[in-house]
Amino acid sequence: MTGPLPSFRLRASDGAARRGTLALAHGDVETPAFMPVGTAASVKALTPDDLRSFDTRIVLANVYHLWLRPGRETLEALGGLHAFMSWHRNVLTDSGGFQVFSLESRRLVSEEGVRFRSHLDGSEHEFTPENVVAFQEALGVDVAMALDVCVKLPAAQEVIDESVRLTSAWARRCAHARRHSLTQLFGIVQGGLDERARERSARELVALDLPGYAIGGLSVGESRDDLHRAARFTAALLPGEKPRYLMGVGTVSDLLRAVDGGVDLFDCVYPTRCGRNGRALTFDGNVNIRNAVFARDRRPLDETCGCAVCTTYTRAYISHLFRADEMLGPRLLSYHNLALFANLMAEIREAIETRRWDEYRDAMLHRSLAPPSTESSSRYPSGS
Amino acid sequence: MTGPLPSFRLRASDGAARRGTLALAHGDVETPAFMPVGTAASVKALTPDDLRSFDTRIVLANVYHLWLRPGRETLEALGGLHAFMSWHRNVLTDSGGFQVFSLESRRLVSEEGVRFRSHLDGSEHEFTPENVVAFQEALGVDVAMALDVCVKLPAAQEVIDESVRLTSAWARRCAHARRHSLTQLFGIVQGGLDERARERSARELVALDLPGYAIGGLSVGESRDDLHRAARFTAALLPGEKPRYLMGVGTVSDLLRAVDGGVDLFDCVYPTRCGRNGRALTFDGNVNIRNAVFARDRRPLDETCGCAVCTTYTRAYISHLFRADEMLGPRLLSYHNLALFANLMAEIREAIETRRWDEYRDAMLHRSLAPPSTESSSRYPSGS
Repeated sequence: MTGPLPSFRLRASDGAARRGTLALAHGDVETPAFMPVGTAASVKALTPDDLRSFDTRIVLANVYHLWLRPGRETLEALGGLHAFMSWHRNVLTDSGGFQVFSLESRRLVSEEGVRFRSHLDGSEHEFTPENVVAFQEALGVDVAMALDVCVKLPAAQEVIDESVRLTSAWARRCAHARRHSLTQLFGIVQGGLDERARERSARELVALDLPGYAIGGLSVGESRDDLHRAARFTAALLPGEKPRYLMGVGTVSDLLRAVDGGVDLFDCVYPTRCGRNGRALTFDGNVNIRNAVFARDRRPLDETCGCAVCTTYTRAYISHLFRADEMLGPRLLSYHNLALFANLMAEIREAIETRRWDEYRDAMLHRSLAPPSTESSSRYPSGS
Repeated sequence: MTGPLPSFRLRASDGAARRGTLALAHGDVETPAFMPVGTAASVKALTPDDLRSFDTRIVLANVYHLWLRPGRETLEALGGLHAFMSWHRNVLTDSGGFQVFSLESRRLVSEEGVRFRSHLDGSEHEFTPENVVAFQEALGVDVAMALDVCVKLPAAQEVIDESVRLTSAWARRCAHARRHSLTQLFGIVQGGLDERARERSARELVALDLPGYAIGGLSVGESRDDLHRAARFTAALLPGEKPRYLMGVGTVSDLLRAVDGGVDLFDCVYPTRCGRNGRALTFDGNVNIRNAVFARDRRPLDETCGCAVCTTYTRAYISHLFRADEMLGPRLLSYHNLALFANLMAEIREAIETRRWDEYRDAMLHRSLAPPSTESSSRYPSGS
């Protein structure tokens, strides 16, 4: 059963980098796009209004967390996840595979699914391909992820092979379990750093003709170079006319490198986690805003950022908020970090569209990998 | 030296309750008014935009905290307190008297001033009437409070008498120390629950012809009835043409009772502290939003509140945010609690202006003192 959505329209490409539009039930997502993470139905410290102010079109939430709290019955009684969060744009939910596999000693995998104990109260639960799809459909999400088997790296060959086999089998069962055409199912390619395993996983999932594919099982212990090699390799195995989503990545340079390899969608806790911890993202590297050098710094966090935080507050004030342990500090920094990512993605889209991708990528990689600086610097001219 | 500001214009009164306009350097404050507390240059969890959205005209900050962090030199280098906070309406700073006296074993009072050790790093500091005024003027605040001696109740008669004597002597020195006409100096009446001490304190301060007076030394251990008896008694001792500010008070019923006694200005950490702790203020009593009864409650926090939180989120969602320890919970609840107070003050002003004060006060006291309810209830009709 396949509805009219999503339609993914490729608008431009420059090398492997792609510029597209993904039409989902709650509106269009311009890609490449970064999805802010709202694990437990809240992008930490921020409101839907905040997210809309930098044109966020889709956020991510987690089946694992929502299953345990507030639970399916509550979410259904309250009209689904969008109504619950007062977020009326798109939501993608991760299937819980990654979270459950992070539980390690608290889970047991079988052909049927995975049993696990809640990290909250030790209660026992089971995820199956079928009940995870039913849960996501009951929540009314726009994109549901198939239940997958995620492996921590490094891993033995047979562990990787088994994770690919089970992930494919479960993806087939997920596809059969679908009932609602407005919730689209994406498959997740596994296979660690092994190219033959990645090929097999991609081939088996592509055969299911799902509306989109994720590259999973990365950012789980391997080096940055290995991550990007595997992501690029996997992206090239996926159908060009469907969206590609690299899960759990990443930093400014990660986004640039992965877009360069043909990735369209991203999510990561990095900008909000940094924001809570006093780490300000800038296009010229990251800084610890608690550092004493910022105590009287009248400049904005990033002099080239036009976000509401950078046009209102000084580094000195935000530095003070963190030193004084004021809740406004994490709030403002989370906002800025996500706005900067949104800004980056908009620039990436423009660079691809105008076929300036190589130039833009190199300039931004050079800037983002430069040592953190407290000096003023001019931004890569966006009109050039 | 007295500048043209502040001018306090009494627009209406109904019994002892007063409706006025206080013109300060950063705009008019319509009274009775509640000042949100931004102890360390931040109203916890909220932005200046948030505060403006419910028409906040003045916030309070604390000399004690700002003296220690970020300190006078930093605040001056950054253009004063308003620029530092990006808050371009009025600021009143408490002189630090109350905070220093809370330190107890860490302070030593003399005729000259009060020596104390920082709660942050144990460093030694001294407040004098002169340096506290100079500090507040350097910060560019709109209202500076005189340095006072605050006593914890119950207290011996000689302790109260000495606090009144020293508070008067220090207020005279504060008045002499003034240099900037845009920063207005308010005196603080002390005297505990002793009416003769209150009379003496008020008489000595009124003789200084200061532009406004605070009722201090209350909400420090005495009963609610004692507080309100002393506040009403003291308010009546103060000149009718000047604003009266009851420090550190209070709850919805406290505000109603104190306005009834002739008070114009208030500050209290109560709404924001409750907000951080999951306590939602409503016109029908307060509720612990973590309570399981709210898990599927689709109603807003207060069905009669038109604030941005009540028009957007359900009790169920906010309850979830607190149970999941999401930072958005304290943010939304702090916003609502302050917006509800702003709403209350606007209604109070209208009731006095239209000479419906007794009716309004009784209806609201009845509602606010009713047992917390999870039932729907209609609001006191504002047009009647």
